[in-house]
Amino acid sequence: MDFTLSPEIEALRLRVRAFVEQHVLPLESDPENFAEHENIPLERLKPLQAKAKAAGLWAPQTPIQYGGMGLPMVAWAMMYEEANRSLFGPLAMNCCAPDDGNMNLLSKVGTPAQKDKWLRPIVDGTVRSAFVMTEPAPGGGSDPSMIRTRAERKGDRWSITGRKWFITGAGVASHFILLARTSDDARRGLTAFLYHRDQPGWRIVRRIPIMGPEEHGGHCELEFDGLEISDDNVLMQVGDGLKATQIRLGPARLTHCMRWLGLAKRCMEIAQAYVAEREGFGIRLADRESVQIKLGTVAHQIQIGRLLTMHAAWMLDQGDRARKEVSMAKVHVADTLHNAADVAIQLNGARGYSKDTVLEWIYRYARQARLVDGASEVHQMVLARFMRDEGRDFWHWGAGA
Amino acid sequence: MDFTLSPEIEALRLRVRAFVEQHVLPLESDPENFAEHENIPLERLKPLQAKAKAAGLWAPQTPIQYGGMGLPMVAWAMMYEEANRSLFGPLAMNCCAPDDGNMNLLSKVGTPAQKDKWLRPIVDGTVRSAFVMTEPAPGGGSDPSMIRTRAERKGDRWSITGRKWFITGAGVASHFILLARTSDDARRGLTAFLYHRDQPGWRIVRRIPIMGPEEHGGHCELEFDGLEISDDNVLMQVGDGLKATQIRLGPARLTHCMRWLGLAKRCMEIAQAYVAEREGFGIRLADRESVQIKLGTVAHQIQIGRLLTMHAAWMLDQGDRARKEVSMAKVHVADTLHNAADVAIQLNGARGYSKDTVLEWIYRYARQARLVDGASEVHQMVLARFMRDEGRDFWHWGAGA
Amino acid sequence: MDFTLSPEIEALRLRVRAFVEQHVLPLESDPENFAEHENIPLERLKPLQAKAKAAGLWAPQTPIQYGGMGLPMVAWAMMYEEANRSLFGPLAMNCCAPDDGNMNLLSKVGTPAQKDKWLRPIVDGTVRSAFVMTEPAPGGGSDPSMIRTRAERKGDRWSITGRKWFITGAGVASHFILLARTSDDARRGLTAFLYHRDQPGWRIVRRIPIMGPEEHGGHCELEFDGLEISDDNVLMQVGDGLKATQIRLGPARLTHCMRWLGLAKRCMEIAQAYVAEREGFGIRLADRESVQIKLGTVAHQIQIGRLLTMHAAWMLDQGDRARKEVSMAKVHVADTLHNAADVAIQLNGARGYSKDTVLEWIYRYARQARLVDGASEVHQMVLARFMRDEGRDFWHWGAGA
Amino acid sequence: MDFTLSPEIEALRLRVRAFVEQHVLPLESDPENFAEHENIPLERLKPLQAKAKAAGLWAPQTPIQYGGMGLPMVAWAMMYEEANRSLFGPLAMNCCAPDDGNMNLLSKVGTPAQKDKWLRPIVDGTVRSAFVMTEPAPGGGSDPSMIRTRAERKGDRWSITGRKWFITGAGVASHFILLARTSDDARRGLTAFLYHRDQPGWRIVRRIPIMGPEEHGGHCELEFDGLEISDDNVLMQVGDGLKATQIRLGPARLTHCMRWLGLAKRCMEIAQAYVAEREGFGIRLADRESVQIKLGTVAHQIQIGRLLTMHAAWMLDQGDRARKEVSMAKVHVADTLHNAADVAIQLNGARGYSKDTVLEWIYRYARQARLVDGASEVHQMVLARFMRDEGRDFWHWGAGA
Repeated sequence: MDFTLSPEIEALRLRVRAFVEQHVLPLESDPENFAEHENIPLERLKPLQAKAKAAGLWAPQTPIQYGGMGLPMVAWAMMYEEANRSLFGPLAMNCCAPDDGNMNLLSKVGTPAQKDKWLRPIVDGTVRSAFVMTEPAPGGGSDPSMIRTRAERKGDRWSITGRKWFITGAGVASHFILLARTSDDARRGLTAFLYHRDQPGWRIVRRIPIMGPEEHGGHCELEFDGLEISDDNVLMQVGDGLKATQIRLGPARLTHCMRWLGLAKRCMEIAQAYVAEREGFGIRLADRESVQIKLGTVAHQIQIGRLLTMHAAWMLDQGDRARKEVSMAKVHVADTLHNAADVAIQLNGARGYSKDTVLEWIYRYARQARLVDGASEVHQMVLARFMRDEGRDFWHWGAGA
Repeated sequence: MDFTLSPEIEALRLRVRAFVEQHVLPLESDPENFAEHENIPLERLKPLQAKAKAAGLWAPQTPIQYGGMGLPMVAWAMMYEEANRSLFGPLAMNCCAPDDGNMNLLSKVGTPAQKDKWLRPIVDGTVRSAFVMTEPAPGGGSDPSMIRTRAERKGDRWSITGRKWFITGAGVASHFILLARTSDDARRGLTAFLYHRDQPGWRIVRRIPIMGPEEHGGHCELEFDGLEISDDNVLMQVGDGLKATQIRLGPARLTHCMRWLGLAKRCMEIAQAYVAEREGFGIRLADRESVQIKLGTVAHQIQIGRLLTMHAAWMLDQGDRARKEVSMAKVHVADTLHNAADVAIQLNGARGYSKDTVLEWIYRYARQARLVDGASEVHQMVLARFMRDEGRDFWHWGAGA
Repeated sequence: MDFTLSPEIEALRLRVRAFVEQHVLPLESDPENFAEHENIPLERLKPLQAKAKAAGLWAPQTPIQYGGMGLPMVAWAMMYEEANRSLFGPLAMNCCAPDDGNMNLLSKVGTPAQKDKWLRPIVDGTVRSAFVMTEPAPGGGSDPSMIRTRAERKGDRWSITGRKWFITGAGVASHFILLARTSDDARRGLTAFLYHRDQPGWRIVRRIPIMGPEEHGGHCELEFDGLEISDDNVLMQVGDGLKATQIRLGPARLTHCMRWLGLAKRCMEIAQAYVAEREGFGIRLADRESVQIKLGTVAHQIQIGRLLTMHAAWMLDQGDRARKEVSMAKVHVADTLHNAADVAIQLNGARGYSKDTVLEWIYRYARQARLVDGASEVHQMVLARFMRDEGRDFWHWGAGA
Repeated sequence: MDFTLSPEIEALRLRVRAFVEQHVLPLESDPENFAEHENIPLERLKPLQAKAKAAGLWAPQTPIQYGGMGLPMVAWAMMYEEANRSLFGPLAMNCCAPDDGNMNLLSKVGTPAQKDKWLRPIVDGTVRSAFVMTEPAPGGGSDPSMIRTRAERKGDRWSITGRKWFITGAGVASHFILLARTSDDARRGLTAFLYHRDQPGWRIVRRIPIMGPEEHGGHCELEFDGLEISDDNVLMQVGDGLKATQIRLGPARLTHCMRWLGLAKRCMEIAQAYVAEREGFGIRLADRESVQIKLGTVAHQIQIGRLLTMHAAWMLDQGDRARKEVSMAKVHVADTLHNAADVAIQLNGARGYSKDTVLEWIYRYARQARLVDGASEVHQMVLARFMRDEGRDFWHWGAGA
């Protein structure tokens, strides 16, 4: 049992911290940087990314041979958390969703040719990517078995027909990973495909307006009407779609947690700075018991979130699927992010509700944390089932299969 | 003890319900009606208001002689709740904030001349109004004793200097009620003044960007630099500013609750319609225990909010200040509105996070409910003090002073 | 809409308050009064009951012709709440469970002969009674359709075989109301029977040890092995067992709430007295924000509980079954009682955990409040179903069928 | 970063598990083992302890040279958690409170002579011990600065006068560690003394009746009226009393957490076994969503508690005081134990409220977890102050001073 970061990771953490402090955070004070769907304009992002690349802080999740840093997940945790002290940190260092999950999946299961063609440009930062799974009712939302988009054999190619929605980043992506139904088999009915935005046979129906600030490329609704895909662009085997999804999902859920922890800590910083100055009813806010209890409670939640996330990251690094651990981290950190933003807004009063701080940006963003990747109740039910099936081994320390 | 609505109020309630169903709700389906800061454009509001006026559903809180309906607060409760089934209901019937609180205050404490000049046009709907109290740090936020905006005697007039912010509706208001410091007396240091937007000596510094949808006229930051006010535009007596605020506050807090209950019920309608249709993992959402528990829990909270609000309204109708009762309603209903929107979004999944329903509008709007009119902790502390001071009479049924 | 108590009820309330203050509360300071299973010894109870009877505070739930006060439920609410300021109040005034529910049921559905024989002695206080429904696994716990105790025709009589448990008061009861299966019909398979303790064919297997203080007669496990019951001791018709249960249940659940509210207020009294005196870290506890918030929060919950209970009582008085209203009161007040005791213990520190106050007695007693009469989740699900089925009429004010 | 238990600790854990399974758990099924204040009779404990000693599972917290196992705290965590699967586990293995905290303190700060005289017999199990600090109002409860018991110089000895209460185990203890005031200095006003039960000048006033099951020796109220103590029985230096308390407190708080986690897991076992069998309303309880969510939520809390506890244990092993980490573990695990018992009772229904399982024993015991060693609010406020003072280092991984 050892809770120390290795010196290399600690050094990395401090470099990320300094980079964010020096190069990223200052960008937040310019309202123009929230001009494009409340996100930083691409022309301002590019020079920032160049700096990060030059600083060697780039694509932590990808193998070195493909241009990334090839770090273990325990190191991601620190890098992501520090990066997300700023809203723009993950974008700067090429560790934002959905690219990071896509890079991770392609690194793990792509053929060498697929990696050269589809992965390397994402790592380089020359293209963006999207993961095309969820569908509007009555299609597959959180339940992949309900996916209705079909891939049907047409000559030596697959032809795709159907509708998807809430496809993050689709508006700017060039490389797409698409889930479609190739049979009605319960376990092996889905297949993952790769396609490029310039291919015909599909279109973006609309960029769905949402409550929160948007990723570049928005959350789009897509229609497929005969998109053709050749066999060499099948990712893994035909029928492996669900498996591909699961390989992507664990780390993707966990990187969300890492980012959310960074944002939650940021909320605390803003709240602390305000209560240290502001008075009311003859007392400084920071000296009120009720304020201290609120802040201390969130600090407690954040620290729990960090332990859960680090534990799950370490498990994944050991080769364990870490399903329980990822579930626990996800449920907890999603709530924590909401609470951190909520408490910080409450302590800032009317100012917290205004756009004078980034709190309201984070608050709206946080709402999706409790929606994506499974509702809390579902995760709690899964935990109960694990506890039933594993008996007393449920409480085992260390990693297994 | 009688929990029945009088036949007159019940008839009124049904008329409001029908009006909203027929004339107001349909407006929500046109995205153009969210064009102006997510609020209905004024040119579309006017004809709607004309219809409401023609239907005799207009200004429930104002005496008949000044053009309102002269209803008791128990009747407001029903009318407001039904009106706010739609986002635009209160606007349609001239019972939206901050006008309703201003009309109520002017009705109660204005001189006949002040009522003719300042009240009647608001009731008619020809002008809008604003209540100018809160200040940015280090001025008076929720603590009026910290108010720094000064009114100083200059000849036979008062000259106003200072800064205010989060002044709801200031961008479209013509009639303003302003709180300023006329002495350093702890109890009688503040005075309420009336002024018109066309007077010189003040300006709107900015319309503060906020998280939520805006009232017409936004939430503005104001600067006063020599605005002059004559003695006949002092509301009540010099030194009565705090008293005026308190007279306005009780009913104003409670009408917030009435509106929020209407919105909370609306959230439930949207959620119920969705879960009745949507399936996942082989079961209709409406048939899942976890979904039923969520919906039932919110229904419970809403019903509690209605009892608390009705009780407080009835107390105010009896001439009681109802401080405890209003506090209890405010704290509870603010939380309820948040929970209703939050649960409805959760049950709608990604759709709930989009702007395809009004849920996200309500969710953002709801966040301010827990900020305005006193944080929950403050109200709970006030309750504890009442319980200490009143002993077993704290639990008395019926109204007193 | 009127939230005033009638002068008669208010006068009654004050009389009950005075009686409790003068005659009942002082009994709590003698440890001997907790000698019998933490309940007052019967020989001390008898003179207390004589005083209550003499004061005209006796059996509020029973018609005057049978020796009770014949009060509406709105009046019960006040009387029960005041009575239960003391642990021994309801016992003193013959309004404790399960007798009150049994008296209410017999009053409503008994034949004149049954009332003379079975009801009157309970009202007089010469015998105690029990309601024999719940069974150990795999029999009927909260689900009456699972009841396995059978009544089979044997000549002109019914012969009872089976096992029951958690039969409150069975150890001292003489009059029993028993639910048993007379057929497998889903709706009409159960029948209610009356029997006397002296009849052969049944026995008390054990007095089940429980966490909390006990009612007189404990919570017993019963075995039936040929108890014979004649037709004139069938309550209502054969097959009406479920109906009888439901008639009993609404008011019985609500009288629990009334009592629990009295206990919750008592907890607040004890807590307030302590925090007003005790200091720590240089400040009186009563002056700490965290203490005020705790107390204010519980006060808020109690007041909500009173509105819910009063509303449901009024509905029942109007002849409405008030299923939603009773459910809402039950769920809320059960939680409130726990919170009141829990907070009072927390504020009293180690003293709260000792038997130096009655708080720990109440805390243990409170645990069963969340178990009996349906778990909270079940009630919330029922509410969701009502909301679905009644549409917008769910929110109707006033009583219906 | 490494979350693996060392093979030695894992082997130890399995040995403890087996011992509990084989020798300790069976004792719970005999009601006679709850005969002495709901604790195992001493004459039955002795042979059990002999077995544990023979198995080499004895006094994990004490150096080998004094007869213990000399384990690091990370190993305690596993041993305590497994031991407390049974109510009697810690007693069996000499790792129950308050002895374990006293042994730890004496090991760390006693002189060699003091260790021989006062420590060794506790480790051997021939005597029990008590820590005498808390006082009834107006003395020092949770605030040591309010301690009023005085030690005054009388010749070459100290003479003790005052009153203490809630002294765990005092009824059976022979060795006492006593905190008394030797001056009014804010920091160095207290001194720790050692005395033996046979010395004159003090007495046990009463064994305070409490809600929960008792440790051997109860929680006693003590009166000191001239107890004389020689200088060689001063622990550490005169004026070091507060320091001694703090040295004892960190590990003592944490061993509470370790034990509570064991009990919480036990509650889950009982609940799972029941819901796997019991049906209601046509469905097995284990298959209800609401049941799974309850169980999963507690499992989540327990696992968080284990991470917090292990992290704090590891910090203490590194020589860090781990104040934040211990606070976080304490607050969380105290709540977890309550929730685990509460949920398990709820799922067991009436059975859970009976003494047919150990759940109600644990539920009552759990109530003190939220009282001892600082209320949750106090810990949250302390966290807020750390976060303020340490800035971004608050989130540092690894151990410092």
